[in-house]
Amino acid sequence: MSENRQIVLNSRPSGTPVPGNFRIAEGSRPSPGPGEMLVRNLYFSMEPATRGWLDDNDKNYFEPLKIGEAIRSIAMGEVVASNNPNFAVGDIVRGLLAWEEYSIATDETILLEKMAIRRGVPPSYYLGALGGSGETAYVGLHQIGRIQPGETVVISAATGGVGHIAGQVARLHGCRTIGLVGSAEKARIAREELGYDVTINYREQPDLVAALRETCPEGVDVYFDSVGGTTLDAMLQSMKMMGRIVCCGMIASYNQSDDPPPILNIWQIVARQIEMKGFLLYSYADHIPEALRTLEGWVQSGQLKVLENKRVGLEQTPNLFCELMAGRTTGKSLVELELA
Amino acid sequence: MSENRQIVLNSRPSGTPVPGNFRIAEGSRPSPGPGEMLVRNLYFSMEPATRGWLDDNDKNYFEPLKIGEAIRSIAMGEVVASNNPNFAVGDIVRGLLAWEEYSIATDETILLEKMAIRRGVPPSYYLGALGGSGETAYVGLHQIGRIQPGETVVISAATGGVGHIAGQVARLHGCRTIGLVGSAEKARIAREELGYDVTINYREQPDLVAALRETCPEGVDVYFDSVGGTTLDAMLQSMKMMGRIVCCGMIASYNQSDDPPPILNIWQIVARQIEMKGFLLYSYADHIPEALRTLEGWVQSGQLKVLENKRVGLEQTPNLFCELMAGRTTGKSLVELELA
Repeated sequence: MSENRQIVLNSRPSGTPVPGNFRIAEGSRPSPGPGEMLVRNLYFSMEPATRGWLDDNDKNYFEPLKIGEAIRSIAMGEVVASNNPNFAVGDIVRGLLAWEEYSIATDETILLEKMAIRRGVPPSYYLGALGGSGETAYVGLHQIGRIQPGETVVISAATGGVGHIAGQVARLHGCRTIGLVGSAEKARIAREELGYDVTINYREQPDLVAALRETCPEGVDVYFDSVGGTTLDAMLQSMKMMGRIVCCGMIASYNQSDDPPPILNIWQIVARQIEMKGFLLYSYADHIPEALRTLEGWVQSGQLKVLENKRVGLEQTPNLFCELMAGRTTGKSLVELELA
Repeated sequence: MSENRQIVLNSRPSGTPVPGNFRIAEGSRPSPGPGEMLVRNLYFSMEPATRGWLDDNDKNYFEPLKIGEAIRSIAMGEVVASNNPNFAVGDIVRGLLAWEEYSIATDETILLEKMAIRRGVPPSYYLGALGGSGETAYVGLHQIGRIQPGETVVISAATGGVGHIAGQVARLHGCRTIGLVGSAEKARIAREELGYDVTINYREQPDLVAALRETCPEGVDVYFDSVGGTTLDAMLQSMKMMGRIVCCGMIASYNQSDDPPPILNIWQIVARQIEMKGFLLYSYADHIPEALRTLEGWVQSGQLKVLENKRVGLEQTPNLFCELMAGRTTGKSLVELELA
């Protein structure tokens, strides 16, 4: 019988996840039923949203995972068997599958899509810069942030999977970009490789409000937030009147959903007439094609620099995810599966 | 020499203000210089925003007041001397004046406006239901909340100066209205006099999230927030996907600006894709005429019930303001000055 190695939930994390919260399980390769197809996974996308599904509570936008269940994940793979007239063997698909070698997909699979990979573009980019991460950056900044040329835009996790695209999207639109980073090396990458105008290392400059007052005394027009917590609290004190905060994630809350970091400056929402809006890409599906076309064009022309943090081998997945959740990664984190 | 009694800042409040933070000062009546006019004040509007100006910090949208300075206030009065060609003796004006018998006004006076008081409408209404309070309710619900008939709308401080109009504006637009109140008597007024569909007394039902889950299991479309604090935190957990929170004030923060109540559920902004927007009426001046026309029409037709909490006499001002800030008032709080 053919095997199907999976990464399953071994125990629920308390705080930042550790590799022991996961284990490898050896299952049998599933057979596709009517309307189903068997997908051999090629890449897993590492995403902070996964952290929420590891907790047993109702605070998330998907069901929590059960102990022993394979970890749900955006993945890309190749159709190797199909009972679905819309998909043929050899098609490359992307969707919400799992950390396993083989997944069953159906027309009901969330975000399932047949991929058209452009010539000369690495397929893995379609899980990051040309996938949900890049599209979240582009659609969030334009539709929620309504960025305008000349505006000052602050990006949290500025070298992260979403952030490193967001900084470039804002710069290419004519904005002044300020990147928030957690290390000197990330600051260097942000300025030299990603073209941020300014970086602030919040580990070196714990008074972010003061640092921002110096860097942009007139305040911030748009803050692209994927971290929440104390960073968001500082940004609430640093916005211009009528500033916009695009909330696409709050990683600071994910590791401590039972004891989230408090926000103390919410009053600034009124005093500065701030607009703060949460945003999940799937609600803005109409805007994805334009985002993808633009980002693909920039990748092909070399205007958009894509940073990948890639590991090879299914067994690397827990380590990489834990590094992501500890804030130790740069660029889009993903796992490439070894070919059998 | 003619007198001019004023209420001045005696000491900065710590927490909820007490009458001793204010004192009466006897000044001399000012003489209008070139371009100025002398206004004999008729009414003072009591507004939570005043609380912020009593603290010595930069967290507000106006300068803090100095010790000994007359308390800045929206007031209505009659022009009794004028060196300004745009205003004549006998005109009734409204603007940001002070808690004093006589104020100097100029073309630069913030929000200064010559009033056209409709026949049969009590002039004091133009400081409340037909002034900033009512206009804030109307413009906030429509422009920021984008209320639609059939939607569920929750109003904080549901019998307060702004809230009691907001609840009626939402109901008259065809919304289901839920009023949050702090006493059984306020709950009765909210239902019987203001027409709220449901009231929740948060002192009797401290688990507001559970109470709302029972009352509106599908969640809340629009929350009109003038209190912030733990109420806002509960509402973040009670909104529908894509719900809107209109932030027109955060009275819970005003009394403790150095130690504001923490918000713990900010993550819900992302999970529920909530839009939260701060809002000060003066930024939406274009929308005020329509609001005023509509509200005036409803007052004249009897569709809008106006609740006033009026005291007579300048010396009543500190007490009334302190009661407002302690959450003990119902309807629009204002002081009527005795005629000399």
